[in-house]
Amino acid sequence: MPNRESFSTPFSGNAVAVLGLGPMGRALAGALLAAGHCVTVWNRTPGRDTELLALGARRAGSAAEAVAEAPLVLLCVRDQPAARAVLAAAGEALRGRTVVNATSITPEDARADAADATARGHRLLDAAILTPTPTIGRPEGTLLLSGDPEAFAAHEPTLRALGTVRHVGTDPGRAAAFDAALLDLFWTTVHGWVHALALARAEGLSGAELVPYAQGLSQLLPPLIRDYAARADERRHPGDRSSVSSAEAGLAHVAHTARARGLDTTVLDAALAVTRRAVEAGHGADGVSALVELLARQEP
Amino acid sequence: MPNRESFSTPFSGNAVAVLGLGPMGRALAGALLAAGHCVTVWNRTPGRDTELLALGARRAGSAAEAVAEAPLVLLCVRDQPAARAVLAAAGEALRGRTVVNATSITPEDARADAADATARGHRLLDAAILTPTPTIGRPEGTLLLSGDPEAFAAHEPTLRALGTVRHVGTDPGRAAAFDAALLDLFWTTVHGWVHALALARAEGLSGAELVPYAQGLSQLLPPLIRDYAARADERRHPGDRSSVSSAEAGLAHVAHTARARGLDTTVLDAALAVTRRAVEAGHGADGVSALVELLARQEP
Repeated sequence: MPNRESFSTPFSGNAVAVLGLGPMGRALAGALLAAGHCVTVWNRTPGRDTELLALGARRAGSAAEAVAEAPLVLLCVRDQPAARAVLAAAGEALRGRTVVNATSITPEDARADAADATARGHRLLDAAILTPTPTIGRPEGTLLLSGDPEAFAAHEPTLRALGTVRHVGTDPGRAAAFDAALLDLFWTTVHGWVHALALARAEGLSGAELVPYAQGLSQLLPPLIRDYAARADERRHPGDRSSVSSAEAGLAHVAHTARARGLDTTVLDAALAVTRRAVEAGHGADGVSALVELLARQEP
Repeated sequence: MPNRESFSTPFSGNAVAVLGLGPMGRALAGALLAAGHCVTVWNRTPGRDTELLALGARRAGSAAEAVAEAPLVLLCVRDQPAARAVLAAAGEALRGRTVVNATSITPEDARADAADATARGHRLLDAAILTPTPTIGRPEGTLLLSGDPEAFAAHEPTLRALGTVRHVGTDPGRAAAFDAALLDLFWTTVHGWVHALALARAEGLSGAELVPYAQGLSQLLPPLIRDYAARADERRHPGDRSSVSSAEAGLAHVAHTARARGLDTTVLDAALAVTRRAVEAGHGADGVSALVELLARQEP
């Protein structure tokens, strides 16, 4: 049985409950503690809070107990089913609270959860954390929140302890939309890098040798990101620099080289298949950003 | 019939023949002209040299004619079969020349072509151009060359007109190995970005709204590139920050969100399948860089 006596400090205006103590949940709790907030932590499986307790966090025996201690609740668990299970377990204790859900969920789920929260007497803001754990609590840590603007305004001063915090819309699904698009770019890029490292190794190059050139390549991304976005927004894809056909040739070349070395080429083959479909659909001479149209326009 | 009379200027020490006038070939020829070199150009299909002729380039009627005019030959065509066809067509005119092949070819092909060049009485350096056409002729333009160090030393002063030029090894295949690994990262990342733009559009976000955050994300890449490379080189993949399981959850979330919007998910599904295989192989708690081991270790 949780011991209610352990929660004797009176309800504090800037108290925060952090539910979910994976690496990101721990980083969030740590940044709040560093900023002097009163933090109650809970995790489904025990043993994740040792460092946080040493920094002054209190341990709650259940999600409901943690929530009872604080007007602001940060929820950061693995996925949407886990997030809903925690909110269900917290039950009536959530009434009057503002929950910031930093779990990656779909925009639809964020909207549904916000409506559900209103019906149950609490408020839900969805949050997208765009930067990794070491940035949390620093200005480069970036969090987007969407949903009830009054709830955001009420808790923004506390949330600022986490990094740079922006409200991106009253629609609760908007932060999740940003999140999904940016995770899409991030995890696909990560797959590109781990495959490049595997290919380099197979060719007798060390990762260290490749690093300066790969970092140089990453510096080419900001203008490419900007140009492709502008073309996608205008739905015009001039092939004046790099064409879909050149992308096809490049991907075919890399996939061939990787296969010749016995590497797994699942992701390259997929990217090549998408590019080939764009060529077959008549986009070969268009700019590479024309792939956006093909991806968005799914066959029924 | 090509008119030999049009090639009356005597053989010049810093004359260069550029074979292949796609966007990159034109950029290479333009940079050489801007640096004051005597440039002869040739392309399989006509009509690509108008601007270059206005800048002082000469048009050759065949690859052999172009090669006859210059000790240094830059070859930049679509792929390896095209490159071999051009070199075969140039025939005996190549004798004594140094060919820099900037076409993307495999390391094995680069080695075979260099050996073949020696047998035929010319020298072949393989080149990897790491930066896009607008950088050519500027310090940020980056070219890696590999092969015969004496041929490189002889032509380095001329090649410097193209940008920052580095000799990365006597093994002719080494530039191609760098090239393939970096193209792997580049084209996979491009697929991540076009898919992110398609997903954002489906969620009602413009590309312009996404740009600052995507550019911010690209700034996170240099340390990630360095850390993953160090772990790949050490073959140790601690899961202290981001685990293979978290990558699986992230990719599953994005793929689910994209599918719910009717988007093509070919590349995401492929990345998710690779990540799931790593989890099934027992790497779930390892760091994401452990994917390198899975990709390199193919089932027979």
